Amino acid sequence: MNELITKGEKAKKAARLLSVLPTGVKNTALLTIADGLAENSAYIIEQNSLDIEDAKRRNTPSAMLDRLLLDEKRISAMAEGIRQIADLPDPIGRSDGMVKTPIGLLIGKIRVPIGVIGIIYEARPNVTADSAALCLKAGNAVILRGGSDAIRSNIAISDIMCREAQKAGIPDGAVSLIMDTSRETAVNFMKLNGYIDLLIPRGGAGLIKTVVNNATVPVIETGAGNCHIYIEKTADLNMAKRITVNAKTSRPSVCNAAETLLADRDAAKTLLPPVLTALEEKGVEIRGCPETREIFPHAGAASGDDWGTEYNDYIIAVKVVNGIDEAIEHITKYGTKHSEAIITSDYNMSQKFLAEVDAAAVYVNASTRFTDGFEFGFGAEIGISTQKIHARGPMGLNELTSLKYIIYGNGQIRE
Amino acid sequence: MNELITKGEKAKKAARLLSVLPTGVKNTALLTIADGLAENSAYIIEQNSLDIEDAKRRNTPSAMLDRLLLDEKRISAMAEGIRQIADLPDPIGRSDGMVKTPIGLLIGKIRVPIGVIGIIYEARPNVTADSAALCLKAGNAVILRGGSDAIRSNIAISDIMCREAQKAGIPDGAVSLIMDTSRETAVNFMKLNGYIDLLIPRGGAGLIKTVVNNATVPVIETGAGNCHIYIEKTADLNMAKRITVNAKTSRPSVCNAAETLLADRDAAKTLLPPVLTALEEKGVEIRGCPETREIFPHAGAASGDDWGTEYNDYIIAVKVVNGIDEAIEHITKYGTKHSEAIITSDYNMSQKFLAEVDAAAVYVNASTRFTDGFEFGFGAEIGISTQKIHARGPMGLNELTSLKYIIYGNGQIRE
Repeated sequence: MNELITKGEKAKKAARLLSVLPTGVKNTALLTIADGLAENSAYIIEQNSLDIEDAKRRNTPSAMLDRLLLDEKRISAMAEGIRQIADLPDPIGRSDGMVKTPIGLLIGKIRVPIGVIGIIYEARPNVTADSAALCLKAGNAVILRGGSDAIRSNIAISDIMCREAQKAGIPDGAVSLIMDTSRETAVNFMKLNGYIDLLIPRGGAGLIKTVVNNATVPVIETGAGNCHIYIEKTADLNMAKRITVNAKTSRPSVCNAAETLLADRDAAKTLLPPVLTALEEKGVEIRGCPETREIFPHAGAASGDDWGTEYNDYIIAVKVVNGIDEAIEHITKYGTKHSEAIITSDYNMSQKFLAEVDAAAVYVNASTRFTDGFEFGFGAEIGISTQKIHARGPMGLNELTSLKYIIYGNGQIRE
Repeated sequence: MNELITKGEKAKKAARLLSVLPTGVKNTALLTIADGLAENSAYIIEQNSLDIEDAKRRNTPSAMLDRLLLDEKRISAMAEGIRQIADLPDPIGRSDGMVKTPIGLLIGKIRVPIGVIGIIYEARPNVTADSAALCLKAGNAVILRGGSDAIRSNIAISDIMCREAQKAGIPDGAVSLIMDTSRETAVNFMKLNGYIDLLIPRGGAGLIKTVVNNATVPVIETGAGNCHIYIEKTADLNMAKRITVNAKTSRPSVCNAAETLLADRDAAKTLLPPVLTALEEKGVEIRGCPETREIFPHAGAASGDDWGTEYNDYIIAVKVVNGIDEAIEHITKYGTKHSEAIITSDYNMSQKFLAEVDAAAVYVNASTRFTDGFEFGFGAEIGISTQKIHARGPMGLNELTSLKYIIYGNGQIRE
């Protein structure tokens, strides 16, 4: 707890200073940090290799080892990402205008930093660099709590970031890393009211759930994506094939990848076989409902669990539905309010799907894979919110800010 | 728990239907509800008088009895408030525009309801009517959990609202009241993830704290207001007097009332005595720091606790500070990020105060009492957020909505 309070106090002080720091100072600091990371890549890789050795000793699965691994290329990409953040417009201080009230008060909202942002994450050390850079650019102090698997990598990265940032005039405490990676400290971190203004978990469903259940500070849930592609009966076959294959196979491990395919009964016999064949050719395992298996006997059988599972893998669940209402019903029941797509040539179906599907991003005739801060033009993102307050969908710099009302008067009192 | 799940399920279903309900239906329903409340005022007053009798039997303080009391005038004001909500523009379905990406996707955000909103409150039965009306107008289902003191009044009001709403085409379950007023059920209500998209506590500091500590659903903290008036040394004396008296005494029980006065040492001897005399004339008890008491010997002594206390009463704490930095330091330490005001004639001081004070509303030369949805032109409010995510300051209809990205494609896939 002492480490948390000490770092919380320092972060709070730093946040006050950061909130009024000129854009130029923040940008220079980000460029200095990027250079520092690139120049010290050998040291980062050395520390990372110790984490990797430990992880191997614990028989960590290869997919996780890959997430943990840093090499020259990845560090260079990390530095480049920070340079791009420096290039983005500074959201702080903007106003959409002011209004004059009948009694002459001039009232407006200006964009201000949130304050102190906590990030809790797992074994991806690149999160250390990119979250801290985004928070800094938006004028926030950040307290990072990464997983124990990546602790040496995280210390190396955050040490370099702190040193370089301070050289460039960023206040001490603006970026800090919790050294104690125990579960108890993580839970205390989630309850650090008075120090943390917003906590963002970045990781798998288990981490998100732990944070939601334990946190007493405001939280934005991110990431869980059980996304659907719904092939409506008027869908163009080629489009259905291209989009489904793209949404499932272009990067199966990410949250905007499709996990379930829904197809209208009226067209399932014509549309499903070519789409499923195309998926199989890409190495995707098909788990179908009984009707799907009649049409496409190759398919394995989907169990009840399949509809709610985010595979993050080369597997897809397939269900034949009786029109758009059943499709929307299914998505409402099993979806995670992330990204949902309809493939259709029918105007009314497209409008109904857009209106009735409750998700951060609802697509007509495009791949769910576009739900991403870069693709949406934000330049960077800190995660994809699947909750409905504060921010929904990709969270860029703007979503890392708050608002403040400023009121200019000349002696007004309330009658 | 059964009552919560049953009402949660119904609210979720209702929310889906409400989200696509035309504005006209919602407005007609609100007018029908307003008429229903006005026409059934005798029944509401009868039920309320039973609550009042019970409260008297428990020796409830008179200030609390007053909050609980409903009479013809208050019910008529309640109905009128709902009619005004019907008159407000519907925020749902609006978009600030769409953008075309380089590959031809048309991406935009549209305003959608949040879904199911939980309101947890104490003994003010008017909250039942006005929260439900605001939630409905913004297309949300609402589950109300009022205090046991007002249970009969709340049942009467919510029964009438439900009956009238359904007559006008609002789905069943759109408005519901938790009948079980036990603490255990309240805590379970705060953990109703999967049913409640946002929980708003409306009440005193104790309720807010309980909600923050127990809730696992997203919460917006409201209301706690330890507001300051800072009299800078160049302040106009008359303005300082008028604004301080207004901020303290025009309605001491509300959250935007001033609780502490800070005065610059350089001008304290000239400015403080007339301001404090004016306060005393209004019956305000002065609790001063040692320097204040030297200048104004009438004043009682402020203890350390006074700086952090929201009196909600005819009491003010007064402290002499060594310039704006100490004033901001004090506000940062003791303020609740609600409303803060500086009285000054110095341009640079005004700008520094606006930039460095972290609060929902920061005033120059005006009373803190203006922090209010009506005064800010929102037409109505559901509370004043003192946290920094989603909504800050007065929360009107817009703050009861979320956003959804809609994306129109013609076959785009992500490379």
